[in-house]
Amino acid sequence: MGMTTSPALHPDLAPLAFLLGSWSGTGHGQYPTIADFSYQETVTYTHVGKPFIVYTQRTQDPHTGAPMHTESGYLRPVGPAVAEMVLSQPSGIVEVHHVAIDGPSIEMVSTTVVRTPTAKPVSAVRRIVTVDGPVMRYTMDMAAMGLELQFHLSAELSWG
Amino acid sequence: MGMTTSPALHPDLAPLAFLLGSWSGTGHGQYPTIADFSYQETVTYTHVGKPFIVYTQRTQDPHTGAPMHTESGYLRPVGPAVAEMVLSQPSGIVEVHHVAIDGPSIEMVSTTVVRTPTAKPVSAVRRIVTVDGPVMRYTMDMAAMGLELQFHLSAELSWG
Repeated sequence: MGMTTSPALHPDLAPLAFLLGSWSGTGHGQYPTIADFSYQETVTYTHVGKPFIVYTQRTQDPHTGAPMHTESGYLRPVGPAVAEMVLSQPSGIVEVHHVAIDGPSIEMVSTTVVRTPTAKPVSAVRRIVTVDGPVMRYTMDMAAMGLELQFHLSAELSWG
Repeated sequence: MGMTTSPALHPDLAPLAFLLGSWSGTGHGQYPTIADFSYQETVTYTHVGKPFIVYTQRTQDPHTGAPMHTESGYLRPVGPAVAEMVLSQPSGIVEVHHVAIDGPSIEMVSTTVVRTPTAKPVSAVRRIVTVDGPVMRYTMDMAAMGLELQFHLSAELSWG
């Protein structure tokens, strides 16, 4: 980024270094209020030498390439196995998460979800991300539209 | 982005098209609880053909080039002169704004600011962004550390 290229990893990020890179692959989604769907996804976790990770995500229609969802945010370690995550979405939703780090896996549980007046009523989110060598897998559970927290998304992504 | 290059501007974005592009320049900050400071900044407003604008911002130390602040979010029109803005910051802060569009100017007033447990106590933000030809100027007022809403940042940026 800018004048600082290839900065050294901040030592606080060592427990989260397994996330770093660009990951692409295919995901699937479902929810009782919508039709099942699939998507092509690219997720990036990068750093600039400071004690946080920059997260970006975008998905595309697997057939047409048209952009679907996107979101971005930041992951910041605050203890040996604990981090904080914030992210925002163009749909008018922001999520604040408590993050538990367990080896090459993180579990993000929302402490707050805030919505703009026109956003869909999402009230809670849980995201689990696990890296196994060159493969990243994640699941996302969501409570929305008045329904309880339940499975919404899963994807398998490859590094590079 | 991805397979979709140079998409057509979504008609909903016409009133905000003046923001689109990459803007760089110098800014200055102050607050009663900290020393005055200056920064080099790059702000981007981009789109992918959908009815929202992607916002990114990063600042660097003007002398060393070291990264300072960064933030990212989304701006979405919801009426002829009204938009919603969400953004997140690695410091553990998310902002939700009501946005008034007035010609080549937007005024963003926070409706909610949410913080992670370790974030500094920021409680309200007001941002005004104005474009005059190839120049973007903004100011940001902030209520933080128990103090009332007051001037915090201003910058003048050039397009391109």
